[in-house]
Amino acid sequence: MRYAVLGGGKRVRPLLAFAGGELAGADIERVSFAAAAVELIHAYSLVHDDLPCMDDDVLRRGKPTCHVEYDEATALLVGDALQSLAFQLLGEYRLATDPNDQLHMVKLLAGASGSRGMAGGQAIDLESVGRRLSLPELELMHIHKTGALIRAAALLGARCGEYIDQAELDKLDTFAKLIGLAFQVVDDVLDAEAPTATLGKTAGKDAERDKPTYVSALGLSDAKSFAQELRQDAVKALDGFGERALRLREIADFIVLRKF
Amino acid sequence: MRYAVLGGGKRVRPLLAFAGGELAGADIERVSFAAAAVELIHAYSLVHDDLPCMDDDVLRRGKPTCHVEYDEATALLVGDALQSLAFQLLGEYRLATDPNDQLHMVKLLAGASGSRGMAGGQAIDLESVGRRLSLPELELMHIHKTGALIRAAALLGARCGEYIDQAELDKLDTFAKLIGLAFQVVDDVLDAEAPTATLGKTAGKDAERDKPTYVSALGLSDAKSFAQELRQDAVKALDGFGERALRLREIADFIVLRKF
Repeated sequence: MRYAVLGGGKRVRPLLAFAGGELAGADIERVSFAAAAVELIHAYSLVHDDLPCMDDDVLRRGKPTCHVEYDEATALLVGDALQSLAFQLLGEYRLATDPNDQLHMVKLLAGASGSRGMAGGQAIDLESVGRRLSLPELELMHIHKTGALIRAAALLGARCGEYIDQAELDKLDTFAKLIGLAFQVVDDVLDAEAPTATLGKTAGKDAERDKPTYVSALGLSDAKSFAQELRQDAVKALDGFGERALRLREIADFIVLRKF
Repeated sequence: MRYAVLGGGKRVRPLLAFAGGELAGADIERVSFAAAAVELIHAYSLVHDDLPCMDDDVLRRGKPTCHVEYDEATALLVGDALQSLAFQLLGEYRLATDPNDQLHMVKLLAGASGSRGMAGGQAIDLESVGRRLSLPELELMHIHKTGALIRAAALLGARCGEYIDQAELDKLDTFAKLIGLAFQVVDDVLDAEAPTATLGKTAGKDAERDKPTYVSALGLSDAKSFAQELRQDAVKALDGFGERALRLREIADFIVLRKF
């Protein structure tokens, strides 16, 4: 479990949780538990995603994947136990002043992780290999596969605080939805362009597997423009937040301009 | 997910949740969510446990296992999403009058499922194949692998109600711990004795795989006596509950006298 979680990574979801928390004036210790919970879910999904029956990948964050370093059965259990640990954090520590709000956070993370969220997106992904997806179909897949957890990260962070209302939460959600999609578009661009050494994971696998991506759907140049468009729309959703949204804007830049 | 959950099974954990709820005068609708959550965790663990990298089993509850009926990747995601769904239930519905009590239930189920509970027990199990375990080692494995979730089932049910104090919860926990162990001893006996058709899963697999069991550690006859002893001790822990513990006693009988 330590190998899978503490081995680096961009920590985009925790960053979003902290930035969301800042928007709501949240206590940083509270946010750290929410951020950790989301990252544990993300880490478990990578371990399971790399398994031979899924993407069958041997490299992750520049190191052998969990099942290569240990074995498949261990990797399976590692992922399972990481998911449990995520919810244990949400049950064990005080993350919100009103415990009802915290129960809502449990529901939010569970929904984002399960069949109507991340796991559902991966199921759509499995079914789509070798097929030609339309742009709306591709979007539907990614909104679930990566978008749900990214949105949950920002919202969980914000819900640790009290200085935010529903209209503001909705704006934050719009931002997170758009930036989540941008994240995926950039991922596809990097998979097509960046070398394995920079990525820390095997590059060029999408094309090799005939997986539908934004690059295969739009072409490289249009995919890049699309990512920029999404960033602009995302940042626009933060209008009115002023200084409170400084880090959210920085994360938007990082997501679109990153090279790994 | 429906295939893995709605395909029958003994529903021992939900029964324990309802019986625990009865002890505490709990509203039956509340208990039904707690019972469902525990059973979803159990169902996910069976789906993952049957995978080729784990027990590699083809038969479960008299039907093809999930990865045989669908495929490995689907079975992996099904298990993952069932775990999420369990916690979604605990976050979404009102299970306790005090939301702090309900957060405690989230922590309880997560702890029982994770590395210090069920998943940890499965990891010990993986490491023990082909080794000769002492009786205390065997017990340690089962206390985690099956015991943790069985205890959680009874306690979650009871915590849905209000007419129970900590001393009574402790008694219930002792009962559940002992009956959980008895459940496993009987499982080992049945694996050695019962035909596949009765079990609904492949019989005789423990011996074939040289897995440490109570039958291999104690012999068949002593294993049976041990199960009876555990039942008696478990029922003794219910002293003082009177009629309120009627169903708990019946479940103890069912667990030890069952033929499948």
